[in-house]
Amino acid sequence: MATPIRTQVGIIGAGPAGLLLSHLLDRAGISSVVIDKRSRDDIEKTIRAGILEQGTVDVLVGTGVSDRVLREGHKHDGIELRFKGEGHRIDFPALVGRSVYLYPQHEVLKDLVASRLAAGADIRFEASDAELHGQLSDTPTITFTDAQGTEHEIQCDFIAGTDGSQSIARRSIPDADRRDYFRAYPFAWFGILCDAAPSSDELIYSAADRGFALISQRSETVQRMYFQVPTDTKTDDWSDARIWDELQARVDGVDLLEGPIFQKDVLQFRSYVCETMRHGRLFLAGDAAHTVPPTGAKGMNLAIADVLVLADAMGAYYDNGSTEKLDGYADTALRRVWRGQQFSYWMTSMLHATPDEQPFDRQRRYGELETVTSSEAGRTYLAEAYTGWPFDVGYNSPASSPAG
Amino acid sequence: MATPIRTQVGIIGAGPAGLLLSHLLDRAGISSVVIDKRSRDDIEKTIRAGILEQGTVDVLVGTGVSDRVLREGHKHDGIELRFKGEGHRIDFPALVGRSVYLYPQHEVLKDLVASRLAAGADIRFEASDAELHGQLSDTPTITFTDAQGTEHEIQCDFIAGTDGSQSIARRSIPDADRRDYFRAYPFAWFGILCDAAPSSDELIYSAADRGFALISQRSETVQRMYFQVPTDTKTDDWSDARIWDELQARVDGVDLLEGPIFQKDVLQFRSYVCETMRHGRLFLAGDAAHTVPPTGAKGMNLAIADVLVLADAMGAYYDNGSTEKLDGYADTALRRVWRGQQFSYWMTSMLHATPDEQPFDRQRRYGELETVTSSEAGRTYLAEAYTGWPFDVGYNSPASSPAG
Repeated sequence: MATPIRTQVGIIGAGPAGLLLSHLLDRAGISSVVIDKRSRDDIEKTIRAGILEQGTVDVLVGTGVSDRVLREGHKHDGIELRFKGEGHRIDFPALVGRSVYLYPQHEVLKDLVASRLAAGADIRFEASDAELHGQLSDTPTITFTDAQGTEHEIQCDFIAGTDGSQSIARRSIPDADRRDYFRAYPFAWFGILCDAAPSSDELIYSAADRGFALISQRSETVQRMYFQVPTDTKTDDWSDARIWDELQARVDGVDLLEGPIFQKDVLQFRSYVCETMRHGRLFLAGDAAHTVPPTGAKGMNLAIADVLVLADAMGAYYDNGSTEKLDGYADTALRRVWRGQQFSYWMTSMLHATPDEQPFDRQRRYGELETVTSSEAGRTYLAEAYTGWPFDVGYNSPASSPAG
Repeated sequence: MATPIRTQVGIIGAGPAGLLLSHLLDRAGISSVVIDKRSRDDIEKTIRAGILEQGTVDVLVGTGVSDRVLREGHKHDGIELRFKGEGHRIDFPALVGRSVYLYPQHEVLKDLVASRLAAGADIRFEASDAELHGQLSDTPTITFTDAQGTEHEIQCDFIAGTDGSQSIARRSIPDADRRDYFRAYPFAWFGILCDAAPSSDELIYSAADRGFALISQRSETVQRMYFQVPTDTKTDDWSDARIWDELQARVDGVDLLEGPIFQKDVLQFRSYVCETMRHGRLFLAGDAAHTVPPTGAKGMNLAIADVLVLADAMGAYYDNGSTEKLDGYADTALRRVWRGQQFSYWMTSMLHATPDEQPFDRQRRYGELETVTSSEAGRTYLAEAYTGWPFDVGYNSPASSPAG
């Protein structure tokens, strides 16, 4: 065992939540150490989708993590909801005065890692066998083994569990002290990456009789598209030609630009929430505490929102010793989480046919799509959620929106 | 068989749809005969709920059917959505500039019958054994037997089927020519009428952990309240004392004014839509073509909306021989019907726990209630539907809203 590492906040998981937390704490003069079992290279190269709410971009830009998001990200001023062969645009700036950004999660991670390392942060990659100890005491610790096989102990005031959906931090909370809320959906998404120019400038969410399809973008030369399939679908079940036929049939009226498909995957649809998000001196944030289906593009954004609340609460504690905000962290964060779950469920259920969908419910769904898209209030209600509700706390930065 | 009765439109069913159709046709110089198997007394005394959209009231007042609705009806400027022990008001005038009226359906019927008879309309009450004939020809007929046992035949250009959810008009359409959309809900409402003053000035829709409850009003001295129960519930299952305990527990924070309960009933929840609403020269309207669960208070309002479209289409036909609007009747009416079904489903599913509800979905529902009530756009979206979307056609009356 090496000499103990002493810090104020031990952070397990170098994803968006953990790295942004470390960054925000640093800005408040609070020290942290971040560990992750993956290598830096792995973290930066795992391709993930990324629709960033306006507020998420504001945080990244406003706290100095990234100006690249504004240069290289794609600002999207709307989405299209498509049904019965017609597209209906949700115009975000006109409805709510903000937008979203297409900027993949691994790009956010590159910015966060670079920013943290430039500031001299202590990030331990390839840290295996992490374990939490004593989070119900005032002196919690994290033990782990580094890439060279040396064992370490982090002695800290608080532990942040930001280690994703397979979180070992979450599993350290005894079953009796937490409640798991879970929902599986009876369908999956078949996703492809292909070499092609964008078929559309903005995302197209299409509710076709044949099932849902999403036309999204990745870059000028690479595109990402999805279509709803049964949960037991294998990627080999679908030839390229059949994929294009199916995608095209589900966005009748839009001409898809085809290109070589170089990746296929099947995404299962699950919702999960862990209550509570706090156990003694352990605080969960992001995917460690909750996951959403991808329809509403809320995953990373909810993680960022958690971290803002947590950093603010820890800041108050170190500023004046008050535990009030720490005590309120779970309730504050969960309120937004449940709203995000609801939005993700709503977008999912409005746009997808379940395998056993009754004809009544299909027509009702079209009635809902028609009601939402034909009403400015309906479009606004959707746009508010999609572009992101206001955060519960600020982030110690110029109040004006640099990305606005 | 008596001498044939010759008219332009034969109307089966003297409910709100049939009587208003007769009235609107008369205003356009088109003759009609209305038959109903019930007596006038039965029709006027069958107590039914009635929340009238602003537009429905405008039609009744604007076409001279009723000024009583403005004097004796109760204008409601909002509803309360209640969850987690707190009430959240949806302020209709502030959000959408209109309101709804509490004015029971049998009062509407009294006004319609009186108005029609005063205008010399031909309404045949207690008309039994009604049958439709030849609706695919240009000379459809209706046969029936009057209260004295005499058989009659109505020879007409068109037949309107406005004979309610057990419609014989609808059943005259062969199965191959229509599609029935049906949905049952896994719960019912236990309803009571009691002698008491109002517990609240406006309707309270309460989503409690114990299940849904609705506190509504009937008059200064009689109240109507409902609470969600299993579908197999019998009225005898619940003593008065237990009813009050349950109602009070479901609206925690509101003091219910109790009084002798003089009626108990159990309402099953069903949605139904018949496509098409037209078969040759037969046109269905109102409950004959569609029924909704009571949560959104849309039943009578959808019937009135159907009739406006139908009267307008028949008016165009007699005015200039064009069948274009008649040909479009079903599509035009069904668009609103499906939106009404969706709204009724939405209010129902947001506020009720299904018997097998998972904990995830309960929290998600609360997340939805919180999102809707905390957003002006969300409240507006709900208020637009509750107070009624604009009609597709006008009603041949001064354009200004007399009730506004």
